[in-house]
Amino acid sequence: MSPAPRPTPPARPQPPYPLLFSPARVNRLELPNRVVLTAMVTRLSGADGFVNQPITDRYVRYARGEPGLIVVEATAVHGAKSGPLLRLSGDEFILGHQQLLAQMRAVGPGKVALQIIHFLKIARSGWRQTVDMLTRAELTEIAKAYAQAAARAREAGYDAVELHMAHAYTLSSMLSARNRRRDEYGGRSLEARLRLPSEVLVQVRAAVGADYPVGVRFDAEEAIKGGYGLTAARPIALRLAQLGADYLSLSAGGKFEDALHKIGEPLYPYTGYSGDRTMPPAAYSNGANVYLAESVKQYVNAHGYAVPVVTTGKINTPELAETILAREQADLIGLARALLADPDWPQKARAGRADRIVRCIYGNICKNLDENFEQVRCGSLWPRPFLHAPDQPDDNTPPDWPDADAELTVKLQDNGAIRLTWRAARDPQGVYGYEVFRSVNQGPFVHLTSTLTATHVDDVALAGNHYVYHVRAYDFAGNRSAPSQPAGCTIPVSISVPPGRTLTLDGQVAAEHLS
Amino acid sequence: MSPAPRPTPPARPQPPYPLLFSPARVNRLELPNRVVLTAMVTRLSGADGFVNQPITDRYVRYARGEPGLIVVEATAVHGAKSGPLLRLSGDEFILGHQQLLAQMRAVGPGKVALQIIHFLKIARSGWRQTVDMLTRAELTEIAKAYAQAAARAREAGYDAVELHMAHAYTLSSMLSARNRRRDEYGGRSLEARLRLPSEVLVQVRAAVGADYPVGVRFDAEEAIKGGYGLTAARPIALRLAQLGADYLSLSAGGKFEDALHKIGEPLYPYTGYSGDRTMPPAAYSNGANVYLAESVKQYVNAHGYAVPVVTTGKINTPELAETILAREQADLIGLARALLADPDWPQKARAGRADRIVRCIYGNICKNLDENFEQVRCGSLWPRPFLHAPDQPDDNTPPDWPDADAELTVKLQDNGAIRLTWRAARDPQGVYGYEVFRSVNQGPFVHLTSTLTATHVDDVALAGNHYVYHVRAYDFAGNRSAPSQPAGCTIPVSISVPPGRTLTLDGQVAAEHLS
Repeated sequence: MSPAPRPTPPARPQPPYPLLFSPARVNRLELPNRVVLTAMVTRLSGADGFVNQPITDRYVRYARGEPGLIVVEATAVHGAKSGPLLRLSGDEFILGHQQLLAQMRAVGPGKVALQIIHFLKIARSGWRQTVDMLTRAELTEIAKAYAQAAARAREAGYDAVELHMAHAYTLSSMLSARNRRRDEYGGRSLEARLRLPSEVLVQVRAAVGADYPVGVRFDAEEAIKGGYGLTAARPIALRLAQLGADYLSLSAGGKFEDALHKIGEPLYPYTGYSGDRTMPPAAYSNGANVYLAESVKQYVNAHGYAVPVVTTGKINTPELAETILAREQADLIGLARALLADPDWPQKARAGRADRIVRCIYGNICKNLDENFEQVRCGSLWPRPFLHAPDQPDDNTPPDWPDADAELTVKLQDNGAIRLTWRAARDPQGVYGYEVFRSVNQGPFVHLTSTLTATHVDDVALAGNHYVYHVRAYDFAGNRSAPSQPAGCTIPVSISVPPGRTLTLDGQVAAEHLS
Repeated sequence: MSPAPRPTPPARPQPPYPLLFSPARVNRLELPNRVVLTAMVTRLSGADGFVNQPITDRYVRYARGEPGLIVVEATAVHGAKSGPLLRLSGDEFILGHQQLLAQMRAVGPGKVALQIIHFLKIARSGWRQTVDMLTRAELTEIAKAYAQAAARAREAGYDAVELHMAHAYTLSSMLSARNRRRDEYGGRSLEARLRLPSEVLVQVRAAVGADYPVGVRFDAEEAIKGGYGLTAARPIALRLAQLGADYLSLSAGGKFEDALHKIGEPLYPYTGYSGDRTMPPAAYSNGANVYLAESVKQYVNAHGYAVPVVTTGKINTPELAETILAREQADLIGLARALLADPDWPQKARAGRADRIVRCIYGNICKNLDENFEQVRCGSLWPRPFLHAPDQPDDNTPPDWPDADAELTVKLQDNGAIRLTWRAARDPQGVYGYEVFRSVNQGPFVHLTSTLTATHVDDVALAGNHYVYHVRAYDFAGNRSAPSQPAGCTIPVSISVPPGRTLTLDGQVAAEHLS
């Protein structure tokens, strides 16, 4: 413990985010705001592919938070065997989607799209089917399946359909610079790699009509050796715009080529570096992939196409989202893990209560669950045994500390990391978790991370600086406890710093650039 | 052949690049301009580690082109066995460096730095030593070896020394998020990972004095799974600035962790995706890593440090270099492959003759030669059997075409790529190569690629567009032939484009965004 600046006062309602909460047009559809829940696997479906209760619960929960557009997870256009995955490969699946939509629409104003996907076979041996193995007849079947599934999505009542052309799946593998086909659908020509994705988009459009919103998601960078980068992504985007795509949702990576093979399990994408680029972990800067969207958007706009571009990847705050829109780096803000962590992110931000958001820490436990073929939940932040984000109860009583003292202690470890421990808080309806705030050298307190348990190790503190922490407990309603008494320590300098030199950080700047 | 726009007239002298050719200060050193030849392996040294004739020839050739700073390739601070690699592990190596410098200084005004490196053991089995295997005594030895080598670099007369903390080598592996040490030099703490690099910088400074320029090269992103990104790169940069680094040269990737192991050969970095990030191939956009430098520079500058930041990675033209400086995304422009392709790049640009630059096409044959343990040359552009970039002879006679006709023909292939062939040009002193220019839909002709032989396949042409090409031959003096007669073709649209839609590109925009 040491002298410390005063903790920040409890947050006041903040001004809203005028660009983020302005409507956006996608074809004839008007989105009430610019927050897009990008498609994210849940592994909640049954193997039969029908909408079930856990799927319904998950998406109704999202709808309640009021994002402008919810993209329901990748749904197979074909009947291939796979793990738990929604399907729309036949009319028998439509009813479930209608019922899902009815329940989502009852709780929120957001529009709802369905992402549809075709994928190839994988085996536990590590073998996988690649696009160069497909016959021309099979390519024809794939385009037809996309068109039929899109028509079913419309029939089910979805506001839009999104064609999955990203990551490790069939259409992305056609676009890939590593497409090894030698015919008009691949080989060493961008036009040939574009052919099947173009045909799919055209046939989908013919099936759903001119006025039905059709979006496309694809990789702005493959992030694998020999993969394509922006020089291909820009013309790919333009082609999709020219063929009438109503929005372009940009992702990165997520490929099979660098996937780690676990013996006895099918090869799974996202397990290599390219998967880190899809879902940037905490070590990446906020908005890590925004530069990709900016470049693609500039190119498409310069050609006269105003098609909205969705950017995603560790966009951690409404402030950052608003800045991206203000800089015209993108038109729509894709959030996935941030909305998994807290589906109420949009309505809290709009209400000027961004301080109540349960902030994703990009710990990627969700990603690890998926990689291990387990149901996806927020393992970093949701208390067990929640399978979905907790609802906000009607509760105005914040948590507090026993004897009004959190007993926050900090301990400097040998390796220079700082271990924080504190007492568990109390709340009549249960404590949800804790937020850890840090001030460097008398600078402002900034959210460092959130935890489920009453401990954290700060491994990014630097020698020669004074760190002060406080923690706040929060409950399921979002009520915050008073901040704990602060606790701090200085990391000693054990290297011989030359005279006149200092390792001191500017507390204000450090706060602005936490990640 | 088809109707075509007129070819562009022969290039006129262009205005120079005022920022690129303004001086820059590095400690007490004044660089005459802002072009930096970043360190690049040559494999020209003998296994004994002494400066030899091929090394001398290579660097004298670079010096003649007049970059502001030449960083001589990674030179070992220790005596470990390795392939062809310069050494400065003992005083006996100093004389050779003195002689090299005398010859470089005789031909150009550029300043010269030496990059010094420590690396760990690798075996043909694929085994490699990692930093967690090093004893504390070995760490002490490493810091001492850096300090001694830096003192020898100063004694040899180098204008600066650069500490290699990038890619797959010892100090980068200490900084790495995948450093597995559990003590004060690693484990899960950024401060601990910074310790040895900090100690090395401090001890080097003590050895060379306050007024001797000491630069550091390190990764702004590791580009491997679990590696660090900008959130660590920014504080790493700040620490180096605080400890008195005189410039920060940013690279990316180049790691062992994703290297491809060739049976029977030692594991070699740069062979995986992370190596593509170090030396972005043609599929990446120009200035592919500039966003990393911009972020690091902002952070360091915001803390009050004006230390110059070097950015590198597919900076293909003086125009782009000038733009980067104008936008304050970096302070110095690192070129490696571009100067390998044409060491005269700086003086041609300064003289307003950028049109005479032999333009790197980022084909990475140089990288492949290195990966195959062969001497590094520009295999894309240098005529065989040149081991170094050809000198510019005194010659004002441009190449021409037999019978004044290049007989340029274009042939559309089944996969949508366009094959160009033309007749070989003639030149009294020999033809160096050919430049291929392309116009899309009557837009301006833009340099598409350069070739050694009279053929090229354009694999990025798109359906529904009219492409016209011309080629120019160039000789060793940089003289360009008249453009060939143009030849063009339209790629037919074979997908059914919806009514009212077009696949046509805007020729002007396409020209501005070629890559």
